[in-house]
Amino acid sequence: MERIPILKIGNLLLVSIQVDLQDRTVITLEEDLAEKIVATGARGVVIDITALDIVDSFTGRMLATIASISRVLDAETVVVGMRPAVAITLVELGLSLEGIKTALDVERGMRLLSARA
Amino acid sequence: MERIPILKIGNLLLVSIQVDLQDRTVITLEEDLAEKIVATGARGVVIDITALDIVDSFTGRMLATIASISRVLDAETVVVGMRPAVAITLVELGLSLEGIKTALDVERGMRLLSARA
Repeated sequence: MERIPILKIGNLLLVSIQVDLQDRTVITLEEDLAEKIVATGARGVVIDITALDIVDSFTGRMLATIASISRVLDAETVVVGMRPAVAITLVELGLSLEGIKTALDVERGMRLLSARA
Repeated sequence: MERIPILKIGNLLLVSIQVDLQDRTVITLEEDLAEKIVATGARGVVIDITALDIVDSFTGRMLATIASISRVLDAETVVVGMRPAVAITLVELGLSLEGIKTALDVERGMRLLSARA
């Protein structure tokens, strides 16, 4: 089974999603991330979706769930690397990712989180 | 076609390999990376292979090629996240990744590169 790696950089965690997301992969990611936040005491999570050509409602829900899990564990989530076409599709789907912070790229996302920490 | 994202963090580039590597993917990655090193003036490249269960001679060669390309563009490469089993297989295959620096995780890899910059 595919497992999405979670990289620790300073007091942030970086998740770069590059594979097609299946139910099982998403559940594993959520569990792994929750554990890693607790184990490392990370204050922020950067989710990079540069590699995703398509973001459907399933992915949108996953991003919202991850943000909520992080929030209750006292970490903030920023989604970075969204393509223009993905942004348009999301809004057309009625998914405006409310409550989820976004940044153009990993660097800006990390800066945003560091500024708040 | 799959394209492996290259993330810029400070003056380093981070490549997290999570997909099965095909010839085309590797060539694209090498081209993208060379362009990005020049465009950003990055001094180091961190290649994360946490997600790889198997590293064969093809992958070994790719890591060596990427390290060489980076070197001629004045950037240093560190391979991080190698699993114990992968290390054993590599050595059994006679691939000891000579000339390629390694570190246990992304954080140590970034620290190693920053220390040299």
